[in-house]
Amino acid sequence: MTERRLTHLDAKGAAHIVDIGEKAFTRRRAVAQARLRGEADTIVAILGGALKKGDALAVARVAGIMGAKKTSDIIPLCHPIPLTKVSVEIEGESETTLFVRTVAETTGQTGVEMEALTAATTAALTLYDMAKALDRSMVISDICLLEKSGGKSGDYRREP
Amino acid sequence: MTERRLTHLDAKGAAHIVDIGEKAFTRRRAVAQARLRGEADTIVAILGGALKKGDALAVARVAGIMGAKKTSDIIPLCHPIPLTKVSVEIEGESETTLFVRTVAETTGQTGVEMEALTAATTAALTLYDMAKALDRSMVISDICLLEKSGGKSGDYRREP
Amino acid sequence: MTERRLTHLDAKGAAHIVDIGEKAFTRRRAVAQARLRGEADTIVAILGGALKKGDALAVARVAGIMGAKKTSDIIPLCHPIPLTKVSVEIEGESETTLFVRTVAETTGQTGVEMEALTAATTAALTLYDMAKALDRSMVISDICLLEKSGGKSGDYRREP
Amino acid sequence: MTERRLTHLDAKGAAHIVDIGEKAFTRRRAVAQARLRGEADTIVAILGGALKKGDALAVARVAGIMGAKKTSDIIPLCHPIPLTKVSVEIEGESETTLFVRTVAETTGQTGVEMEALTAATTAALTLYDMAKALDRSMVISDICLLEKSGGKSGDYRREP
Amino acid sequence: MTERRLTHLDAKGAAHIVDIGEKAFTRRRAVAQARLRGEADTIVAILGGALKKGDALAVARVAGIMGAKKTSDIIPLCHPIPLTKVSVEIEGESETTLFVRTVAETTGQTGVEMEALTAATTAALTLYDMAKALDRSMVISDICLLEKSGGKSGDYRREP
Amino acid sequence: MTERRLTHLDAKGAAHIVDIGEKAFTRRRAVAQARLRGEADTIVAILGGALKKGDALAVARVAGIMGAKKTSDIIPLCHPIPLTKVSVEIEGESETTLFVRTVAETTGQTGVEMEALTAATTAALTLYDMAKALDRSMVISDICLLEKSGGKSGDYRREP
Repeated sequence: MTERRLTHLDAKGAAHIVDIGEKAFTRRRAVAQARLRGEADTIVAILGGALKKGDALAVARVAGIMGAKKTSDIIPLCHPIPLTKVSVEIEGESETTLFVRTVAETTGQTGVEMEALTAATTAALTLYDMAKALDRSMVISDICLLEKSGGKSGDYRREP
Repeated sequence: MTERRLTHLDAKGAAHIVDIGEKAFTRRRAVAQARLRGEADTIVAILGGALKKGDALAVARVAGIMGAKKTSDIIPLCHPIPLTKVSVEIEGESETTLFVRTVAETTGQTGVEMEALTAATTAALTLYDMAKALDRSMVISDICLLEKSGGKSGDYRREP
Repeated sequence: MTERRLTHLDAKGAAHIVDIGEKAFTRRRAVAQARLRGEADTIVAILGGALKKGDALAVARVAGIMGAKKTSDIIPLCHPIPLTKVSVEIEGESETTLFVRTVAETTGQTGVEMEALTAATTAALTLYDMAKALDRSMVISDICLLEKSGGKSGDYRREP
Repeated sequence: MTERRLTHLDAKGAAHIVDIGEKAFTRRRAVAQARLRGEADTIVAILGGALKKGDALAVARVAGIMGAKKTSDIIPLCHPIPLTKVSVEIEGESETTLFVRTVAETTGQTGVEMEALTAATTAALTLYDMAKALDRSMVISDICLLEKSGGKSGDYRREP
Repeated sequence: MTERRLTHLDAKGAAHIVDIGEKAFTRRRAVAQARLRGEADTIVAILGGALKKGDALAVARVAGIMGAKKTSDIIPLCHPIPLTKVSVEIEGESETTLFVRTVAETTGQTGVEMEALTAATTAALTLYDMAKALDRSMVISDICLLEKSGGKSGDYRREP
Repeated sequence: MTERRLTHLDAKGAAHIVDIGEKAFTRRRAVAQARLRGEADTIVAILGGALKKGDALAVARVAGIMGAKKTSDIIPLCHPIPLTKVSVEIEGESETTLFVRTVAETTGQTGVEMEALTAATTAALTLYDMAKALDRSMVISDICLLEKSGGKSGDYRREP
């Protein structure tokens, strides 16, 4: 780690938005995930609502997509990025778990990991908000990057 | 659960912002948490940066506070709430874990759980962003409500 | 009209946010509408998508709700208002027309007409965006206030 | 219509921001309109205020321009677009009608119809807000696309 | 100064939004100012444009008003405040100076100094932006609080 | 000045976002400054807080960076610009003065003067907010452009 530096910190340690002006414009893609764990009744209610009316999952998907577009407004040192694609999928993974998977893409000078992670997080928070009247003990977890491609630092794929 | 309903869905199942116009103005408070797990070197770098320069943790704290204020803009069905207090604390919990604890308060007609949770999540995402050049495998987890007080639905304290 | 003045203009004619500090805190409610007209095939596709998957209408409803919350950020001289309720309903009115009806409520010092109108408009624009690949000739029209209650200026109900 | 699909819906019908990453960077332009209808006295007051002080129309023009820049924040599935030009013109069309005409341009991978339409709508809503103390029965209508150029789907010009 | 503390810093020195939940709801008002200095030709062009068409000053006034409403989104530790009045006045003070004076009011638990200052600053930045093609050497200065009333800390009036 | 025109005003004098669609994509950079003047005790408290805990200055730096990204949302006629770098430095200049210096960069079709100026202003306003409990008489001044490069209008460097 001694070779790499926390590039968000300048020579004096002050936070700044790092210079990407010399980086190449390339296609960049990131895939992220999040999980929401709750009581089985809660998960059924969310999914059932979604299957019957589309709304609980639909609101969370829209929130995740809009969250991705707000990333540079939310995360202080993120560059503003003109996203070319965003998708948010939500599905039941077990009786007590919902799985959120997001994809963000751009053609630009920096990666879109934070956009994919923000989308996943916002979707999960929205699911929590939709169901919190039923169950206050839900937990959001396992928010991480699954894949990343494009850019000089090389591709990344999380080991299962 | 049959007695309680997902009040975000109206009679036809369409999402809407539920009516809180008849609820009392009371002091309301929520406490939430999040954890960031990474390699020991990453955690040291974040904390060391913080201890030496204050910046890594300082940026995440500011992001968490500003995130709390953006909650109703990020979570589609949240009411806009005039927060009267927000705080974000971040500390090393183990060699590989940072712990984020947030408090949100208001005097109003609805609770501030989502504000506290959004603050915790935004702070954790910001820590991830600050350190992602070192470690792409970090995981954000254990995002949940610790305490809630004020309002008709009664106080809540998460069991340890 | 000679008795009433355009209160958004001050003595010198400069735009400003009018003083509501002396007005009473009362329950206020506004109902607004909008229509989207398109080819019959387009309307079927939007509604069919909604009935089958919930998404086309669901996205527009969420957009309308979030639009209501952004009103004071979009309309320069609107006061920021802590909305206590927002709802957006969309339904087929004829073979070539979708009808949007919105409700906004608050307990505050000024009315919520603009919030209801902004919700209706944003929902209609979103329906247009969802379907514009099929039909560029759609028209949004009939955006108006249906009802208003609360406040000193008296109740209003649009004549049919 | 069977050949074309609602591209905002993916294979499973879930809303997403469609992939434009392979589309060419071209000059794109859209022209849109809106009308505000009111009592003759109201229209005179708006225009007279504008002619004498410039403010009523000036506020609506600024609102329309800023609205265009907020499009991707307001319309959930719109891509963020770096606009290269926005203009908003407002003029009296008849004794009871104001006509709003907007132009949006970019050099990018997707069109700017929604930006032009959002500008027209926001300007019209702002005119309504400026004059609503005089006349609550105003109606905003005839919001539509007048012209579109650039991009693979070909130019469009609304038939008169 | 030993008696007063920088209340934005908590016991450990971490930034947070200070608790105002116990403070009284009172009428609060703040008046602020800013100056823009430029070449005499520039000032004439701005004012002349304003007098003839209303636009240069009108855009800055609208920007100032909207800036006041964005204060808690721009200044990290400001509480969100439901403003009840905002006004922005701009006038020629000398051949080379424009004077901006702003007023912000609320009925709430904390003061509106930052709202008045943000309005003044945003209006001045907008004047700079409108005229920068003519004159890049303009300087914005003398941004300060003129008056403050309401709240426990007592009234304040800047000495001339 | 007769040769140059206020390009923000169109043929009829109406404000609009000027067309930059034909301008070249070049590297552009701007450097700006601001000063905060206060009582010596106040300046010591801000800097001391910064040196010991990093927070007072850290919050202002983050605010300045985020302010730069909000420029096109705050200044009505600014184009949205994908910034490639932003930095904010704050240091004690004299016993009673803090000096803020900001840098903004992009690769695009228009300059970033307003982004650098907005960063400087937002950082200074934030310092004021952090310390206003100690000293209400602080003054923000000397906000101006120090350098500008890139683009057709040529480089600029402020004379000392």
